[in-house]
Amino acid sequence: MMRVDLNCDMGEGFGAWKMGDDDAMLDIVTSANVACGWHAGDPGIMHHTAALAKDKGVAIGAHPGFNDLWGFGRRVIAGHSMDDLEKQVAYQIGALQACASLAGHRVTHVKPHGALGNLSQADDDIAMAIGRAIKGVDATLVYMVMPTQATERAAEKLGLAMAREAFADRTYDDTGNLTSRKVEGAIIHDPTFAAARVLRMIEDGEITTVTGGKIKAQIDSICVHGDNPAAIGMARAVRDALIAKDIAVRPFIET
Amino acid sequence: MMRVDLNCDMGEGFGAWKMGDDDAMLDIVTSANVACGWHAGDPGIMHHTAALAKDKGVAIGAHPGFNDLWGFGRRVIAGHSMDDLEKQVAYQIGALQACASLAGHRVTHVKPHGALGNLSQADDDIAMAIGRAIKGVDATLVYMVMPTQATERAAEKLGLAMAREAFADRTYDDTGNLTSRKVEGAIIHDPTFAAARVLRMIEDGEITTVTGGKIKAQIDSICVHGDNPAAIGMARAVRDALIAKDIAVRPFIET
Amino acid sequence: MMRVDLNCDMGEGFGAWKMGDDDAMLDIVTSANVACGWHAGDPGIMHHTAALAKDKGVAIGAHPGFNDLWGFGRRVIAGHSMDDLEKQVAYQIGALQACASLAGHRVTHVKPHGALGNLSQADDDIAMAIGRAIKGVDATLVYMVMPTQATERAAEKLGLAMAREAFADRTYDDTGNLTSRKVEGAIIHDPTFAAARVLRMIEDGEITTVTGGKIKAQIDSICVHGDNPAAIGMARAVRDALIAKDIAVRPFIET
Amino acid sequence: MMRVDLNCDMGEGFGAWKMGDDDAMLDIVTSANVACGWHAGDPGIMHHTAALAKDKGVAIGAHPGFNDLWGFGRRVIAGHSMDDLEKQVAYQIGALQACASLAGHRVTHVKPHGALGNLSQADDDIAMAIGRAIKGVDATLVYMVMPTQATERAAEKLGLAMAREAFADRTYDDTGNLTSRKVEGAIIHDPTFAAARVLRMIEDGEITTVTGGKIKAQIDSICVHGDNPAAIGMARAVRDALIAKDIAVRPFIET
Repeated sequence: MMRVDLNCDMGEGFGAWKMGDDDAMLDIVTSANVACGWHAGDPGIMHHTAALAKDKGVAIGAHPGFNDLWGFGRRVIAGHSMDDLEKQVAYQIGALQACASLAGHRVTHVKPHGALGNLSQADDDIAMAIGRAIKGVDATLVYMVMPTQATERAAEKLGLAMAREAFADRTYDDTGNLTSRKVEGAIIHDPTFAAARVLRMIEDGEITTVTGGKIKAQIDSICVHGDNPAAIGMARAVRDALIAKDIAVRPFIET
Repeated sequence: MMRVDLNCDMGEGFGAWKMGDDDAMLDIVTSANVACGWHAGDPGIMHHTAALAKDKGVAIGAHPGFNDLWGFGRRVIAGHSMDDLEKQVAYQIGALQACASLAGHRVTHVKPHGALGNLSQADDDIAMAIGRAIKGVDATLVYMVMPTQATERAAEKLGLAMAREAFADRTYDDTGNLTSRKVEGAIIHDPTFAAARVLRMIEDGEITTVTGGKIKAQIDSICVHGDNPAAIGMARAVRDALIAKDIAVRPFIET
Repeated sequence: MMRVDLNCDMGEGFGAWKMGDDDAMLDIVTSANVACGWHAGDPGIMHHTAALAKDKGVAIGAHPGFNDLWGFGRRVIAGHSMDDLEKQVAYQIGALQACASLAGHRVTHVKPHGALGNLSQADDDIAMAIGRAIKGVDATLVYMVMPTQATERAAEKLGLAMAREAFADRTYDDTGNLTSRKVEGAIIHDPTFAAARVLRMIEDGEITTVTGGKIKAQIDSICVHGDNPAAIGMARAVRDALIAKDIAVRPFIET
Repeated sequence: MMRVDLNCDMGEGFGAWKMGDDDAMLDIVTSANVACGWHAGDPGIMHHTAALAKDKGVAIGAHPGFNDLWGFGRRVIAGHSMDDLEKQVAYQIGALQACASLAGHRVTHVKPHGALGNLSQADDDIAMAIGRAIKGVDATLVYMVMPTQATERAAEKLGLAMAREAFADRTYDDTGNLTSRKVEGAIIHDPTFAAARVLRMIEDGEITTVTGGKIKAQIDSICVHGDNPAAIGMARAVRDALIAKDIAVRPFIET
């Protein structure tokens, strides 16, 4: 039986501010990428998200980003050495581990967020710094990577377990990277189309690029979003389509 | 052979700003309380402090405080539930554990900082919240407590290992708490006097209060300071006096 | 013809996070209390709120709070001297003045937010510190005060123009202060009841307390809320009731 | 009689952390660029610096930077629109104006700090955004610019008064910009050499580049530093050399 994980960013409120409908998404996905207080989240939210995830059998991962609440981790902050980044990622993983521990859950993967995530796909040094942080904190943590990109190379080089991720609602260029959001058609809005595309990627083990090229890629996890009702609808459509085809929707690691 | 630990707050810079002479103090003390980024410190400083401490055989502890860089953790921030505080302390412990792990060191104790530390001596609920955080993150961590105060009661109640601390440069009131800094004579400035007083506390196993009262107390660690040259001089005087009396100056736990 | 101002807190998002429906509220109220970036708001939001208010003929005021985004300014941060508070309030007023200036609008009042606001009603020193900040930055700014409370006394003492405020959805104790939110019935949820009560306060020039007592008070402004649809409904009901009784709903100052 | 201003960055502590010796520098310079709380400084420090400057007859300017205490404003934070930057600069100017007002002083110039400052020399859009902020907040404020660079062009285009600045301790490339700190010899350490060079720039009205080229430039202000004893020594040497040559050392604007 084929299987795949569904992952989503969560715990993205801060203090009095809310974002997304985590409760709804935790009934759909099997892995939650939990913000660690640097671009969103705080200890209370981190604990709450971990506790909810534990209740619903959802795996959790650290979702480290730049130290930038104002910019939600979406702005590149330049001038970091690779050593800096390594420690910053470690700090965030450790903080979530502790909050998860209080909630009786445990962190099993790491996926970089926002601008840090984007940089990590294209820049081998950054992908390695994140990988070294993972390995230094807990070498059994799974590095969530993009097939063919720098993160996959870093996980391989460091001997880290990895979960290869594809996006339900984004198209790919011929390098295997996401097409820029600024490009017409970069974002897929039709849930039926997205679900069919996801099925094909998993069944064929390849990603189709915007020019029709094929990139061989084992897909371990599908990234979905929960920031608005349409996104939640698409996430549910993807899940339903997978189950209808007898593809098991399960975390990529025992939790 | 009698033994005692010497502890000092460290890693209290932030970004471009420096505080204290950690290098000098790491040659004097045997335990370092490392700021966790909430009232001081950042991942780079935390890692650096842990690495230096490792090199010099100094044990490290988490030094969690209120989330208040501007106030250096010295201001009471009201309105926290005990649940909030528990998670906030856990977050900081985990963050330091991860940074220490990258440096090849490991966290072995926890001592609350500043306003949080002061509250924790007088308020059993707060002392328990900190204790639950310690226990939830790693039940083998040592809770650094003040004899006769709420922290000692919390550690006992939770079954946590504890290190009982006395202060080299502060006087005690008859409840066993520190006299307020605002009181004339609350702070001891004479290194010779301080060293003699520390020796007596350790040898007699009791603390002398400002009224001449005696409080039975096993002393596992002596708190010294490193914020200015005079403080460093006193710390060294205390260390020298202990060694001259054949009292071993060692961490209270194997590191 | 009688007149009254309606005021509401606004601009309370931060970065990617939203709060309240400012657009809707700016069609209802005549004065907006704009967060200044310390408990909520950022320069973009401050500018946007000022520009929208300008468009709709709504006056704006600075809404300074404690420097506490995480706690939304609702937590008391202790340990400030009155000098500290004075400068902190001045900082926030100036920051909003500059952002408003870019938007072609100008700040005409100041109302302290959250925990700082609550303290300022009961504590004459704090009310005076806020008043001195107002006077020092621009002596023509109007201090929004609560009748019979410390803020009113401070404005009088400093010779500042003041706008006396009453709350549409809160009950009063016999000292003229709001009853604690923890007390049953402290918050009024029925829009019809609230509107009738507001009318009576304005027409009679007195506030009725929970025990039936009467406190003479000229009411220059009514505080309404916009954080949820029910609150917006109540604000609209109050406005409609005032207009139906030929009470002009207008800013208390020419903008 | 020739005249020139000496300017220095000041008020760069934060909370419990200190930086530089402002007291010493205020006896040397005639203009202080005051940090506005985003990369350094807080309302208390801003007020204190303004009050000291007032006492000593030193003019003050706003020294806005990126919102980055951790990075001291030295890191480029990408992803800002020009509108964002304009409002961010305005916010900081207004905040300092208010703090200065409490201290009986007034802000008379604006000089961007750190990474924002560097970008503003090379990028006309950023230089214009800063200029529009200045003009929008107070069109009489002087824009401190670098001759031949984007800031000078922006001030001219916007019709703002400007003070053209040269650096005592840095060399220039043939575009009129500073040579990179990474280049050997980019920083001048010899006070006598620096002082002589400053004199020549002012007397000749031209800047000599590293290749011996000459760039015509009226010099209104010389930038000196105060972060360490050597820097203070150089600042004093420059001042003494100017006075010895009967060049008046005075603010470029009446304060």
